[in-house]
Amino acid sequence: MNFKIRAATKDDCKDISRMIVELAAFENMADQMKISHKELESDGFCQNPFFGCLVAEVPEEHQSKEGFTVVGYALYFHTYSTWKGRSLYLEDLYVMEEFRGIGIGKGLMGKVAEVAKKKQCVRLQLSVLNWNTSTRDFYAAKGAQDLTEREGWHLIRFDGENLDNLANDAPSD
Amino acid sequence: MNFKIRAATKDDCKDISRMIVELAAFENMADQMKISHKELESDGFCQNPFFGCLVAEVPEEHQSKEGFTVVGYALYFHTYSTWKGRSLYLEDLYVMEEFRGIGIGKGLMGKVAEVAKKKQCVRLQLSVLNWNTSTRDFYAAKGAQDLTEREGWHLIRFDGENLDNLANDAPSD
Repeated sequence: MNFKIRAATKDDCKDISRMIVELAAFENMADQMKISHKELESDGFCQNPFFGCLVAEVPEEHQSKEGFTVVGYALYFHTYSTWKGRSLYLEDLYVMEEFRGIGIGKGLMGKVAEVAKKKQCVRLQLSVLNWNTSTRDFYAAKGAQDLTEREGWHLIRFDGENLDNLANDAPSD
Repeated sequence: MNFKIRAATKDDCKDISRMIVELAAFENMADQMKISHKELESDGFCQNPFFGCLVAEVPEEHQSKEGFTVVGYALYFHTYSTWKGRSLYLEDLYVMEEFRGIGIGKGLMGKVAEVAKKKQCVRLQLSVLNWNTSTRDFYAAKGAQDLTEREGWHLIRFDGENLDNLANDAPSD
């Protein structure tokens, strides 16, 4: 089956939103998705977009059982290393189950790496859940380092009330 | 001792670069810093900057032993959660040793949280090394969640040759 990987447009946001929910369900966190395709449209397709996105598309004749032709996506954004400079972070990589095993995931990953190289990024980073061993093995086989295991990095989050409290600590100008 | 926290300017990049090396030395990774203040200037002070930065400044009469008045910094950038939307990531937070314990770190952290709130970010995230228990305790006391411990997220990195190899997997358009 042939497929095409292209930059997402505003019109893809409904498909992307649908697949974000599918990916969250796979991660046993379907209840975590709180934004709508409207937010993806305004945050991703404005003057200084908060993210970039690629989608994988199959021809009409190979559409999914439910009639979808956009069957995978990769969503990324720029980050910065104070040691090495420009970096790219891959927030999500997803291919619908019935379209796995034909190289779409590899193709999306390759295109994201190509974006990183074009923007002179020296790193591509991402996070993976520790129980997701098949994905961890896939990245390891491609030469990636697990920085949590190797160097002991932990990811920390402030949100909600504790973020408000931090902001209240800000000295006045 | 009074201090001021303000947005960094291009002229601060030499001071920021000096402190990046000091922070790397504290993390036992001083050899990792490979970029110069020139890259900070071009990446942080261009039309679509790769990062934002705040600095802490003390009056001349309180300058450091070596004569520095810019004595701390916080460097951050925007990220994006496909579940929750706009987020901010704090890459580095640092205060020179002789200026610790007078609220500069708390002030920088508060100002970064204020930036997050102003930009309608729902999260502020950062990474910390597992042996750095005093910092981990500081964040925990402020209500932060350790996502590596709680949900099992591991940070993965591609760089150098393995990033090149990924890009070579990209299908042609």
